[in-house]
Amino acid sequence: MKVTKAVQAILRNYESDNPGVKGNLARILMEGKLGGTGKLIILPVDQGFEHGPARSFAPNPAAYDPHYHYQLAIDAGMSAYAAPLGMLEAGADTYAGAIPTILKANSANSLIPDAAFKDQAITASVDDALRLGCAAIGFTIYPGSTMGLEMFEEISEMRAEAAAVGIPTVIWSYPRGEALDKNGETAADISAYAAQIAALLGAHIIKVKLPTDHLSLKEAKAVYEAEKIDIADQTARVRDIMRSAFNGRRIVVFSGGAKKGADSVYDDARAIRDGGGNGSIIGRNTFQRPRADALEMLGKLVDIYKGKA
Amino acid sequence: MKVTKAVQAILRNYESDNPGVKGNLARILMEGKLGGTGKLIILPVDQGFEHGPARSFAPNPAAYDPHYHYQLAIDAGMSAYAAPLGMLEAGADTYAGAIPTILKANSANSLIPDAAFKDQAITASVDDALRLGCAAIGFTIYPGSTMGLEMFEEISEMRAEAAAVGIPTVIWSYPRGEALDKNGETAADISAYAAQIAALLGAHIIKVKLPTDHLSLKEAKAVYEAEKIDIADQTARVRDIMRSAFNGRRIVVFSGGAKKGADSVYDDARAIRDGGGNGSIIGRNTFQRPRADALEMLGKLVDIYKGKA
Amino acid sequence: MKVTKAVQAILRNYESDNPGVKGNLARILMEGKLGGTGKLIILPVDQGFEHGPARSFAPNPAAYDPHYHYQLAIDAGMSAYAAPLGMLEAGADTYAGAIPTILKANSANSLIPDAAFKDQAITASVDDALRLGCAAIGFTIYPGSTMGLEMFEEISEMRAEAAAVGIPTVIWSYPRGEALDKNGETAADISAYAAQIAALLGAHIIKVKLPTDHLSLKEAKAVYEAEKIDIADQTARVRDIMRSAFNGRRIVVFSGGAKKGADSVYDDARAIRDGGGNGSIIGRNTFQRPRADALEMLGKLVDIYKGKA
Amino acid sequence: MKVTKAVQAILRNYESDNPGVKGNLARILMEGKLGGTGKLIILPVDQGFEHGPARSFAPNPAAYDPHYHYQLAIDAGMSAYAAPLGMLEAGADTYAGAIPTILKANSANSLIPDAAFKDQAITASVDDALRLGCAAIGFTIYPGSTMGLEMFEEISEMRAEAAAVGIPTVIWSYPRGEALDKNGETAADISAYAAQIAALLGAHIIKVKLPTDHLSLKEAKAVYEAEKIDIADQTARVRDIMRSAFNGRRIVVFSGGAKKGADSVYDDARAIRDGGGNGSIIGRNTFQRPRADALEMLGKLVDIYKGKA
Amino acid sequence: MKVTKAVQAILRNYESDNPGVKGNLARILMEGKLGGTGKLIILPVDQGFEHGPARSFAPNPAAYDPHYHYQLAIDAGMSAYAAPLGMLEAGADTYAGAIPTILKANSANSLIPDAAFKDQAITASVDDALRLGCAAIGFTIYPGSTMGLEMFEEISEMRAEAAAVGIPTVIWSYPRGEALDKNGETAADISAYAAQIAALLGAHIIKVKLPTDHLSLKEAKAVYEAEKIDIADQTARVRDIMRSAFNGRRIVVFSGGAKKGADSVYDDARAIRDGGGNGSIIGRNTFQRPRADALEMLGKLVDIYKGKA
Repeated sequence: MKVTKAVQAILRNYESDNPGVKGNLARILMEGKLGGTGKLIILPVDQGFEHGPARSFAPNPAAYDPHYHYQLAIDAGMSAYAAPLGMLEAGADTYAGAIPTILKANSANSLIPDAAFKDQAITASVDDALRLGCAAIGFTIYPGSTMGLEMFEEISEMRAEAAAVGIPTVIWSYPRGEALDKNGETAADISAYAAQIAALLGAHIIKVKLPTDHLSLKEAKAVYEAEKIDIADQTARVRDIMRSAFNGRRIVVFSGGAKKGADSVYDDARAIRDGGGNGSIIGRNTFQRPRADALEMLGKLVDIYKGKA
Repeated sequence: MKVTKAVQAILRNYESDNPGVKGNLARILMEGKLGGTGKLIILPVDQGFEHGPARSFAPNPAAYDPHYHYQLAIDAGMSAYAAPLGMLEAGADTYAGAIPTILKANSANSLIPDAAFKDQAITASVDDALRLGCAAIGFTIYPGSTMGLEMFEEISEMRAEAAAVGIPTVIWSYPRGEALDKNGETAADISAYAAQIAALLGAHIIKVKLPTDHLSLKEAKAVYEAEKIDIADQTARVRDIMRSAFNGRRIVVFSGGAKKGADSVYDDARAIRDGGGNGSIIGRNTFQRPRADALEMLGKLVDIYKGKA
Repeated sequence: MKVTKAVQAILRNYESDNPGVKGNLARILMEGKLGGTGKLIILPVDQGFEHGPARSFAPNPAAYDPHYHYQLAIDAGMSAYAAPLGMLEAGADTYAGAIPTILKANSANSLIPDAAFKDQAITASVDDALRLGCAAIGFTIYPGSTMGLEMFEEISEMRAEAAAVGIPTVIWSYPRGEALDKNGETAADISAYAAQIAALLGAHIIKVKLPTDHLSLKEAKAVYEAEKIDIADQTARVRDIMRSAFNGRRIVVFSGGAKKGADSVYDDARAIRDGGGNGSIIGRNTFQRPRADALEMLGKLVDIYKGKA
Repeated sequence: MKVTKAVQAILRNYESDNPGVKGNLARILMEGKLGGTGKLIILPVDQGFEHGPARSFAPNPAAYDPHYHYQLAIDAGMSAYAAPLGMLEAGADTYAGAIPTILKANSANSLIPDAAFKDQAITASVDDALRLGCAAIGFTIYPGSTMGLEMFEEISEMRAEAAAVGIPTVIWSYPRGEALDKNGETAADISAYAAQIAALLGAHIIKVKLPTDHLSLKEAKAVYEAEKIDIADQTARVRDIMRSAFNGRRIVVFSGGAKKGADSVYDDARAIRDGGGNGSIIGRNTFQRPRADALEMLGKLVDIYKGKA
Repeated sequence: MKVTKAVQAILRNYESDNPGVKGNLARILMEGKLGGTGKLIILPVDQGFEHGPARSFAPNPAAYDPHYHYQLAIDAGMSAYAAPLGMLEAGADTYAGAIPTILKANSANSLIPDAAFKDQAITASVDDALRLGCAAIGFTIYPGSTMGLEMFEEISEMRAEAAAVGIPTVIWSYPRGEALDKNGETAADISAYAAQIAALLGAHIIKVKLPTDHLSLKEAKAVYEAEKIDIADQTARVRDIMRSAFNGRRIVVFSGGAKKGADSVYDDARAIRDGGGNGSIIGRNTFQRPRADALEMLGKLVDIYKGKA
């Protein structure tokens, strides 16, 4: 597999990492229909944990079967498939070598009392990732939560362990918790801050939500206004996030949240592309649609990232 | 022992597991009167911990003796016998090789203050399971409890340790805690969610309670109604749980709760069978009855799972 | 699985062992056509290591395939199947739970210089046995070899490790080495001595060769003659070996060596049975014959051990 | 990357291995011009250790540079590149993700006294393989050497460690040592025996030399003649080796030895292909030729394995 | 300290190493009068171990004091100072931060019987190197010795440990032992081979002796002649060694052996420089001379490496 110049340029940014970590990043970046472009789309299926099975899979019942998602990711030419331990184990042998997988190593759920909700449980290990042949581990942090510092410590340790054995880390950086109101969770300044924190923690790939044009922190708002930082449209906000991710030296993928209209999904992708983002991590908007619709949508997203749509 | 095609088909779903884990699952699935059918009945006796001896055993005083339960499980042709460390140790030598045992590795009790009740103590280890020749370990989680995340972490670690040495894990997934009211604990959506969480945590066998037709979580209720998910009768609800257990790729056994009329127990079993469930885990309804009655009831349950009653 | 009284009586002799070890001995003793009788026949296939593939499998080419031996052992109703790591791994998933397996943990070969021949290499571990779901480990010692003491130390350590996790040990006790001439290797006194050494090392099952009436050690010869120990026929010699194995408190199985006439194999089995031995470990005499012949021979051996032939 | 049916069929033979090991085997089998066919060609460059730099690289001085070999393997569409630690480290970052690498973990050299020559030094670890992102480790054993048993023990331990973290093992099984004369090292019976030993030790990929029609061991010779095992031509001898590798359940690649005429190399490959072998491991015959010639030869070999030449 | 382009180019060759290792290499390469040129001179003082104190220090008694060597290395503008544990400890506090030190981690001596002479004792650890603030560890191997393989294994392990904590390894690769006669120890082919072995073992800096034009190994001699490899003069031989050190991708320093005339030392340095070598490691020729003479000689060597003399 010749690694393209575009991907080599990205790998050079991970300059302190060993060849094992870079090799796994290359596996993801060279996979699927966007392989070699420096862009990527990841299929994440961890909603069964967070929202329960009915909310996640009932709209498209074939998705109750873990094999469905492996097959969808492969057929759609995705870059990687991310899921918790049980989901991966249920198909890891059948699909060995067929697509890079990302082991989501901590998980939240909607059944725990509100007070504890701003934390997640560690439900898988680096050893699991090696045994299952995963190309990366994934981990959620909640900047803004009382539990945030503890989560930072957890992923710091796990990342170090993973990187030593050649496994990169994807950090889901989701502002949430007592420090933030609902608007704050997706505020432009907070999203950029979340990307920065993930980068500082050593994330190899950063996942954040597409932000709104809201500014949440008073002091940050002052600076955004004084420095005339452009956050007027989605493209500008992606650009602000990318420079917050070490001026683009780290891969950032964006999630779109709950299922919504296809045009809205495409507009998001164009904004990510034009703002210099690396791609999408898109779950519910694909697996909750009928398979044919999901394949069509993902095909269109691929075209957008290739600059053809 | 020729492993039947029905059992081989189940084992193939555990595709990431080593032959040791599959061999122990086969030991359980090939044991007793339902051996080879793909159905199973487990006798669990952990009520001494949770409810104290009098509430558990006084209705049938012979049951104070740990040997009683081993013998009952063997004579009734059960698939396995599950109990805490002390109960197993008190008969493990006498009954070595006589029936697969499941070491219940954590335990609750009624003597601790209510606030802490939604947790359990880890009271046995994987080393104990190996030393005692157990075919599996068992572990209770309380989705819905403040302590839930910690319990998830505990069983994640113990499951990994056990699976590495060929021992499968049975997760008792019992919704309970501050996040749920009494109706919520057995709500249809919550039970399916509990099964999903156990599967995601890597359970090889999942134990949930038979649910009611109540729907507890607002967002889930909306989906159940929008997608017209059938939860009208017990059979339908079992079916919903089975697809929430990786579309039936994981073994699920159902508990019936407190002692009740025999007909009710039989109706439950028919619903489990017809909904595609794998079997029952039935304790108080057997060992609190006189031995002859218990044997009769278990014989009838075997017939039901064989489709003869 | 009700453990028969005959088997329970045997298990009681292993009085210092934990229920895990006894449970695995019970799995072997309750398996197959001799299950429950206290007699056993083990199919060992480690000749590929010791004699090479052509000498081992060319006479019956189907036997080149590791699955062949699993299937033969199952179809013939054997008690267990013993082989080195690679052979077991090549079928352990397909045949998970189908027959107790014994992991041969050290191996000799015919390609090493004569000076080193009286040793074996350790080629598998207790962890392998757990992972592969084995019911026992097997280990060869060469009493009579310079390397003998080191081999004793190796199996002492491995046996302790195995027994702690519930895995019994089968010791292949083969007199060989500088201290013995060719006749000595199968001398009556030496075979009894070899059985004693294995028992002293803590073997749960002892494998020795059927001896001749030769007496090898001068001092032993004197005693055999003074005490008029009967070694006139094979039955008497088996009896002498059994009392040397803690007066029959340890299971002893006998090997018959190279392929020979069927009647000779049957006579051996009758002698083993009548002398109080527990059974046969019979490899080349079965897998080097066509499958139909092997099944017929093993069926006849089962009948002999059941006292019907 | 859709794994082809041909490759999936091969992976199913590794039935006791975890998805990590299978994923890495798939990486190798899906790589390069033979990707997906079930055939493979590996470029090994460990001669610098064994024969010294001049004998290895002077005929084609560009080959003194470690990058040369990475680039040759990639440009020629090889399945994998195998080398000792230093060679891999010198290019592992530049070529991260570009081609599966095999870390040769032990090494011989021509500078040690003859008595010690039949051993190798362990010069790399499983941790190195993870850190460098290798798809496999490689290890040489010398059946026939006094040190053979120790080498078997070394690779048994290292293989177990590697397989647990998802890394397969390639065993170079080279008969050599006091027990064998020069003709014996490449005798037909010895080569088949060497393949069998590697398989029994748990090799995922076996490397042996193409044998001659010589028969070395007296007892084996008798069997080859009695059973009329065909070793008349190279194709027949490859077939005999393949069935000695668990009836083809293990991947076997063949080496051709010292540099020789191109036609001879092609004839070897046709014999490997027609005898059911999986491919070639070809070093000196490629990197000692000028790059253009090497590319032409490797292209032709690819065609042969594809059945086009 | 701006790292020069010449040094950065060298560091880029160490592409699989972490920034810690590269940082320490940079410390050495940027130190002293040759700092930044890519050339280096190391002062080694391990002769006290190997030859005893009188032979080493009596010619210049000030050299009995360990501080003498630190001060000499600093005053002469050396790149690093290498010595065994005791020598370093005796000055490491006084000279903390003053000059990069290399902890010689194994040592030979003249007091052991000849048979054992071809081995060394490990007399310091990576922990010692960290504790003493060393910039590298040093280790001698004896290719050609019966103990060679064991020494390779020792340094493989120690190198991995050191590199993981950011410490590079200098390998003294000294052909010696039963396989070589006296001429062989410094033969051109053997020296190149020794450099290759050190590189393959992962040496960051390789130390070999300047060779003669003798060719020792028959097979190598044939290649040198067939390929017309130029070894006519010292410059050509250095060039041959450099390409044997991964085509110059590894730093190689050359030693000059016993004390000799100054002109001879200068000629050696010019040959090293003109052949593309990186520098000298020069002990007895400096510290056995009066300090003023030593400073003058080292000043002249600096000039030579700068191309001024």
